[in-house]
Amino acid sequence: MDRRTFGRRMLVGGGVAAAAGVTSLSLPTPTASALPAAVRTAGAGGAVRRIRMYVEQLPDGRLGYGLEKGKATVPGPLIELTEGDTLHIELVNTLDVPAGLHAHGIDYDTASDGTRMNGSTVEPGGTRTYVWRTHAPGPRRDGTWRSGSAGYWHYHDHAVGSEHGTGGIRKGLYGPLVVRRRGDILPDRTITIVFNDTSINNTPAGQSPDFRVTLGDRLEVVMITHGDMYHTFHVHGHRWADNRTGMLSGPDDPSRIVDTKIVGPADSFGFQVVAGEHVGPGAWMYHCHVQSHADRGMGGLLLVADRDGTVPGHHDG
Amino acid sequence: MDRRTFGRRMLVGGGVAAAAGVTSLSLPTPTASALPAAVRTAGAGGAVRRIRMYVEQLPDGRLGYGLEKGKATVPGPLIELTEGDTLHIELVNTLDVPAGLHAHGIDYDTASDGTRMNGSTVEPGGTRTYVWRTHAPGPRRDGTWRSGSAGYWHYHDHAVGSEHGTGGIRKGLYGPLVVRRRGDILPDRTITIVFNDTSINNTPAGQSPDFRVTLGDRLEVVMITHGDMYHTFHVHGHRWADNRTGMLSGPDDPSRIVDTKIVGPADSFGFQVVAGEHVGPGAWMYHCHVQSHADRGMGGLLLVADRDGTVPGHHDG
Amino acid sequence: MDRRTFGRRMLVGGGVAAAAGVTSLSLPTPTASALPAAVRTAGAGGAVRRIRMYVEQLPDGRLGYGLEKGKATVPGPLIELTEGDTLHIELVNTLDVPAGLHAHGIDYDTASDGTRMNGSTVEPGGTRTYVWRTHAPGPRRDGTWRSGSAGYWHYHDHAVGSEHGTGGIRKGLYGPLVVRRRGDILPDRTITIVFNDTSINNTPAGQSPDFRVTLGDRLEVVMITHGDMYHTFHVHGHRWADNRTGMLSGPDDPSRIVDTKIVGPADSFGFQVVAGEHVGPGAWMYHCHVQSHADRGMGGLLLVADRDGTVPGHHDG
Repeated sequence: MDRRTFGRRMLVGGGVAAAAGVTSLSLPTPTASALPAAVRTAGAGGAVRRIRMYVEQLPDGRLGYGLEKGKATVPGPLIELTEGDTLHIELVNTLDVPAGLHAHGIDYDTASDGTRMNGSTVEPGGTRTYVWRTHAPGPRRDGTWRSGSAGYWHYHDHAVGSEHGTGGIRKGLYGPLVVRRRGDILPDRTITIVFNDTSINNTPAGQSPDFRVTLGDRLEVVMITHGDMYHTFHVHGHRWADNRTGMLSGPDDPSRIVDTKIVGPADSFGFQVVAGEHVGPGAWMYHCHVQSHADRGMGGLLLVADRDGTVPGHHDG
Repeated sequence: MDRRTFGRRMLVGGGVAAAAGVTSLSLPTPTASALPAAVRTAGAGGAVRRIRMYVEQLPDGRLGYGLEKGKATVPGPLIELTEGDTLHIELVNTLDVPAGLHAHGIDYDTASDGTRMNGSTVEPGGTRTYVWRTHAPGPRRDGTWRSGSAGYWHYHDHAVGSEHGTGGIRKGLYGPLVVRRRGDILPDRTITIVFNDTSINNTPAGQSPDFRVTLGDRLEVVMITHGDMYHTFHVHGHRWADNRTGMLSGPDDPSRIVDTKIVGPADSFGFQVVAGEHVGPGAWMYHCHVQSHADRGMGGLLLVADRDGTVPGHHDG
Repeated sequence: MDRRTFGRRMLVGGGVAAAAGVTSLSLPTPTASALPAAVRTAGAGGAVRRIRMYVEQLPDGRLGYGLEKGKATVPGPLIELTEGDTLHIELVNTLDVPAGLHAHGIDYDTASDGTRMNGSTVEPGGTRTYVWRTHAPGPRRDGTWRSGSAGYWHYHDHAVGSEHGTGGIRKGLYGPLVVRRRGDILPDRTITIVFNDTSINNTPAGQSPDFRVTLGDRLEVVMITHGDMYHTFHVHGHRWADNRTGMLSGPDDPSRIVDTKIVGPADSFGFQVVAGEHVGPGAWMYHCHVQSHADRGMGGLLLVADRDGTVPGHHDG
């Protein structure tokens, strides 16, 4: 992001607008009744779903995951689950090298680990079904409390270019995975920001994605890091709680409120903000706060439009 | 900090003792009655204050913020607010390049964002009023809990040398900002430690600041990081809770207790310790625990004097 | 860890199996009665113990701490205390340079700080007794809550090679220190993983330690970092709470659940997992997720054996 490019971009949901492709998977959830009618929350989990996912090379040389053939994106599609859900993913490898799918946070046998070591990658032209399970929190028989699968997680290749998928990740083989707990509030919109070395979502320098929302939208940010470098993720005008949901659970929650967070490869976290809350509409920067990274263009804009559709002080295009 | 320099320095509140200058701004707060008489806590916010701040070049070439003309310091003055307060800062730019004021954590319109993009910097010789607002926590209409502005925050230039203020920050244009919640306990003394690449508070190598307190003092540390590098902040003999206040809220607070914390540029956190609690008086090192940084002198001393005024085992000067 | 070495190693408790040596110190604790009979928890502290520890050079040139002469290991012995315990450590320095013992997290006078500055190192051939104290949490007279000493801490040299022990740490002078709170659940097994620049537990590249446990074991991991580099610690198939114990304290604990954590020099944390819970037995990688570190072999295996003693899909040796 440099001055010349402000306002020229208005891409939503990633570096490449996936106009027609299916770019997210969300299992349906009922609406809770205890909250105001407009607020939707995650219902009970327990669904079993089956999807197909493609590993593909994009025309520009990047690699991506997609839910339809020829529609791969970087980052890959958002996958949303609720604790208790199970997802079967039939992975179709259209590359000419072995590839795979390794997920963070959820439950899987070694057969779904996605590593060469565990024999769970997919040969070129081949297919393999990965099974991702999730579970709700609850007491163990020994009296301790078992955490649930809820979290802001992610998936990535663990086979292309090295035993650890270094080549696949470098070219874009990663995506967001959100597991919700029953009762978690649902956002109006979810965006994914991946710091992959000095790139954001594998876009070229100076073309980092901007994200446009409307004042008052409940915006969810999934932030993932990849590569070799550490970063500090910062957003102007907005802040979040450094806990599971990114929102305080109530007045007694002691979590730190932050607007900057240090991250390294494979870290992921997420949060919801009410766009423009307390600060109003406008163009709000998000960027890596490592000064040399920021200066090289490692940042973009959170464009919070007023209710009339304009972004005050910001001239698109 | 090397052996030869131990004991030669006894600077308080930063690398340069600001003998006569006004170096902090604190809004008055009443005393709570539920706690012992000696304990002061933050009262209700809601005050509206106006101050003037100067951006200046110091005689040694550093840049600083100050509350009086000719009295700029590095770090800049400590600004303390209570949730609900509003602060109007008239910034006077005495430099020959545009400069500004960008704050973390608090509420402001894009007009107070401090960035060139939002047209909120100050021309050489010019003046601009930044408005910083804060708010208390409370329930939102949608049933979620809105966090308050309380936190250990900071402010810095976002315009000198680059779109991200890289040149201004490198030379010292930063300072601490503490927002308290009503009822938060007040410290006897607040110190600010800024890791700015391999410097502490922009002091030369081997001249990092020491801080002198008395056994039993409630010492508040505001720790800020700037530049390009990551660090691990460590203090000998003292530790804190990795939560909002740096102190456990009670027996059920699950926060980690730490004496080392990884930080990157624009991170900030803070905590209070009772100086020498459980360990007694003496010279206690604080330093970056990245070994090569420590070896280059990136550390100083927390001098905890006994009640007779001496620091056992430590010979000043 | 590279493919060729998978299965060749099955070392437990560190890079070098300490076959006959005393490698950990644990004060006895009674069993709580409120939990199922099989669950052991930490009892009340208050014990005063005395041990002797040796600083030695190992035959391969590394340096280590040991509880018996000639039995030094890297990492050094696990020291476990319960809040309220006091430990007197008579350190015998068999090296030809001054060495010492500096601990994180616990209480000590400057005389037990382990630094040259405080005159608390040990001359070659000499002996010095360090006193480590711990305390339980509780209310302070001023109404604030004083945290206890419980935590996943560590000790290391602070004198060999530099004022900060850079040379000693580089060669292996570090070890784990766990302080439990009364009532904390006890693990079946504790392992220590130290990321020391690109080495794990100072083992050569490609020979990082593997750890073998049985499905259902309550495994405790103490994770420590040293040197100059940051890392992201990741384990496949298992995750933990980013709080004091690494386990949620109950349904209202807002802590983040993670399977990746960014760490820097002198950071330490720990957690307990039930080996293979929700994912079953098998070979589960643990590794630094900085891609170039992983590719250079910075990882090993958590081998979770089935109840019949075999690790499905994994061929030892």
